[in-house]
Amino acid sequence: MGASREHERAGGREHERAEGDERVPGDERAVDDPRCVSLLTDYGLVDGFVAACHGVLLRLAPAVPIIDVTHLVPRGDIRRGATVLASTVAHLPRGVHVAVVDPGVGTARRALALRTPAGFLVGPDNGLLVPAAEVLGGVLEAVALTVPADVPATFHGRDVFAPAAAALVAGRPLRALGPVVDPESLVTLPRLVARVAPAGPDGAARLESDVLCVDGFGNVALAAPADLLAELGLRPGDRSRLTALRGTGPASGGASAAPAARPATDSAAGPPVVAVEAIAVEVAVGVTFGSVEPGELVLYADSDGHAALATRDGDAARALGLGPGDRVVITPA
Amino acid sequence: MGASREHERAGGREHERAEGDERVPGDERAVDDPRCVSLLTDYGLVDGFVAACHGVLLRLAPAVPIIDVTHLVPRGDIRRGATVLASTVAHLPRGVHVAVVDPGVGTARRALALRTPAGFLVGPDNGLLVPAAEVLGGVLEAVALTVPADVPATFHGRDVFAPAAAALVAGRPLRALGPVVDPESLVTLPRLVARVAPAGPDGAARLESDVLCVDGFGNVALAAPADLLAELGLRPGDRSRLTALRGTGPASGGASAAPAARPATDSAAGPPVVAVEAIAVEVAVGVTFGSVEPGELVLYADSDGHAALATRDGDAARALGLGPGDRVVITPA
Amino acid sequence: MGASREHERAGGREHERAEGDERVPGDERAVDDPRCVSLLTDYGLVDGFVAACHGVLLRLAPAVPIIDVTHLVPRGDIRRGATVLASTVAHLPRGVHVAVVDPGVGTARRALALRTPAGFLVGPDNGLLVPAAEVLGGVLEAVALTVPADVPATFHGRDVFAPAAAALVAGRPLRALGPVVDPESLVTLPRLVARVAPAGPDGAARLESDVLCVDGFGNVALAAPADLLAELGLRPGDRSRLTALRGTGPASGGASAAPAARPATDSAAGPPVVAVEAIAVEVAVGVTFGSVEPGELVLYADSDGHAALATRDGDAARALGLGPGDRVVITPA
Repeated sequence: MGASREHERAGGREHERAEGDERVPGDERAVDDPRCVSLLTDYGLVDGFVAACHGVLLRLAPAVPIIDVTHLVPRGDIRRGATVLASTVAHLPRGVHVAVVDPGVGTARRALALRTPAGFLVGPDNGLLVPAAEVLGGVLEAVALTVPADVPATFHGRDVFAPAAAALVAGRPLRALGPVVDPESLVTLPRLVARVAPAGPDGAARLESDVLCVDGFGNVALAAPADLLAELGLRPGDRSRLTALRGTGPASGGASAAPAARPATDSAAGPPVVAVEAIAVEVAVGVTFGSVEPGELVLYADSDGHAALATRDGDAARALGLGPGDRVVITPA
Repeated sequence: MGASREHERAGGREHERAEGDERVPGDERAVDDPRCVSLLTDYGLVDGFVAACHGVLLRLAPAVPIIDVTHLVPRGDIRRGATVLASTVAHLPRGVHVAVVDPGVGTARRALALRTPAGFLVGPDNGLLVPAAEVLGGVLEAVALTVPADVPATFHGRDVFAPAAAALVAGRPLRALGPVVDPESLVTLPRLVARVAPAGPDGAARLESDVLCVDGFGNVALAAPADLLAELGLRPGDRSRLTALRGTGPASGGASAAPAARPATDSAAGPPVVAVEAIAVEVAVGVTFGSVEPGELVLYADSDGHAALATRDGDAARALGLGPGDRVVITPA
Repeated sequence: MGASREHERAGGREHERAEGDERVPGDERAVDDPRCVSLLTDYGLVDGFVAACHGVLLRLAPAVPIIDVTHLVPRGDIRRGATVLASTVAHLPRGVHVAVVDPGVGTARRALALRTPAGFLVGPDNGLLVPAAEVLGGVLEAVALTVPADVPATFHGRDVFAPAAAALVAGRPLRALGPVVDPESLVTLPRLVARVAPAGPDGAARLESDVLCVDGFGNVALAAPADLLAELGLRPGDRSRLTALRGTGPASGGASAAPAARPATDSAAGPPVVAVEAIAVEVAVGVTFGSVEPGELVLYADSDGHAALATRDGDAARALGLGPGDRVVITPA
């Protein structure tokens, strides 16, 4: 275990700063002012819920652009919402990022606003915001939003989070929105495994990683950052051996009431005892889908910097039966 | 019947006025000028229909924000479109609200523009706009839009309604868009039942209400405003008895060619003869989902002020087999 | 064959110029400057891919409106993406239209930016942009976008196409984005058949047309422009006889690596030998759905100027079993 490394999903990721963040002449805003509001929810698109949030924002902050990240997070799937948000915020202008996947609305869960070095995050205290906060440089300050007694208990996106975002984008100080809370007290999601375990009795090092998420194309992003492939000695053009362990990782939609340190799996101890099923395949290591023939699997660095599995012109998640909650073990072939 | 009360779905609802409606310095627009266009359609999101409407608006009214309410109204489901629109308009900035659920496009149905105390509505004369007009304070003036002879007969959203909205948002007077029509002549949807019937032989008052709609979470909104629960004597913490009568209300997608006064159901006359199926359950009265355990039903006031049924972390519509066209009877347990 | 006519899908369509394209006082942009960016992709709406593209655009071109054409093109269906884009661009403000249906991302396919008389197009060189370019007046100039070596190989929408669009909308010259390429070298989709064949031995002229696409309502647009109906002698109120030949046209999602001239079908040679199934029905010719009774088929000119088939209050594609890849033959009844 001594030599194994663990990585936070997006820990250490450098904050990206685009040209567009430079001020244009006549722009009186400070460099640190937010310049957009983004929205991510599990509200779906069949009702008027998203529009009501837009309406509140447009009334309270008329000139601020709104970016819809997605509103099709599966109902209550905090892990997926957190992952999509963390993958996306680095590409958005500095802003106030509102996320609402909130099965606990109407319970005692806190409503949060967080300040990071690269923008604000607003949403429920259930782990949803934390990975994005890490991408944006970490939580500098956190407050528990004061919820007026007279708002309905079931639509905090419209009645609590959107107004808070409008206040922040208008320059209201974070501390005006509610009492300061300790960033260490924030609820976090169970940590995902992503590490290179040292050579075992068989002499081969291996990469163990939980599945982070599956995108709409069926590409499987792993929790492991792509540089762990190089650490394992894998280069484009190599072949790898992949073992899929199904049903071993934290459940997809699971909200955790407190930071849960998953026991690390010891590489010398054999496969995790919770594995319910395993398949093994050989997979080409490539730069992109184009590195392999149609229908073939490829292991590559995806556009977010994660190790990922894709099938060219196909659906790798379906081919491998992999999804959130599963784990893979990768070795050089 | 003498003591029973009937409520229009959103009748009497006070018009909300947000801070954001106040003018900012240098804003030369009148307080009553519209400041956004909203769009609600059944066009779906797979074609370019919505974008074509946006394009027309952006060409004719370049600086005006556009809010998409939803474009996933089930094809031709005027009731659902009307309900989502009425639930949403109060939260949008003062604007021109365009709605197109229009199975009659290309027939003799009129194209309308309506002025209310709190904005304009534009769309077909099939009942779609009326509940939203009531939320916005009622129809002050109505015109039948003049449809140019040379526009295609099948895409009035792009060719008739969007240009009319652009004209209104640019300050063109309503009467310039077509001949005035009598607001009393507008087509309306069949009225939904929502009333407290007085105590019958068994001594118990009861609430009878049609289902208004089911949202994407499976929450069942009733046509009854939430204050009828209090009128029935139900308070959070109480238990209620709910009988679901399926297949008794006006059909979901039904367009009515003329105002159809549904015969009121007499509370002393037993269940309506059209009931095809009934189930009865006990339901907790709560403030929100958080008032009950996961998997439990709760009867509560939703964020639009309607009485509503939800299952915590579940789908109440599926659990109860309820949807538009169904009716419930609620009594204290 | 001498008298038969073939039409490009949108060839000859006049470029539409709306009132809104006129300059307003104080607007210093040139008449030819793009004033919006549109986006069409097969990215879907469940991930943050679309938002990342919006974010890049908003950072690099903060004041430019963005119109989402659709993001629900079926994965890799270049034909459908090209058709929706071509149907929509004429209704958008002059702009930079970005389209990404790009199964070849990460291969050697070129990334393109095209200048037309009525705006720019940006996307992969796989046939996706060409029909829209024709609608906008043809390709005046084409460049192969220079792809920086350090961008991930799998997300050109975010990393190559959106930045190129931002550069163009900001006034950067097309030639600054990469080496000029010959417009004749662009990959095109297999050409669709749409022609009136002269009278055969039976004395009747007939219209042969591939299916162009099916919209979300189940209306079937034909590749044939509507004026071919008049050429065939069909007027609203007439009856026509329609034979549906299934499985005869170019496959829906097929990307072609080079212009493929389909062998024209000779009207005297009987049905195409590749026909796998045929049904024949009588269809009313009408102006719109309203020309027929609910449930009836109608042949009409759709809002894009194509001959089209619809079922009033129904789904013509399902009723006829027709979709892309199929062909119809129409004669006066």
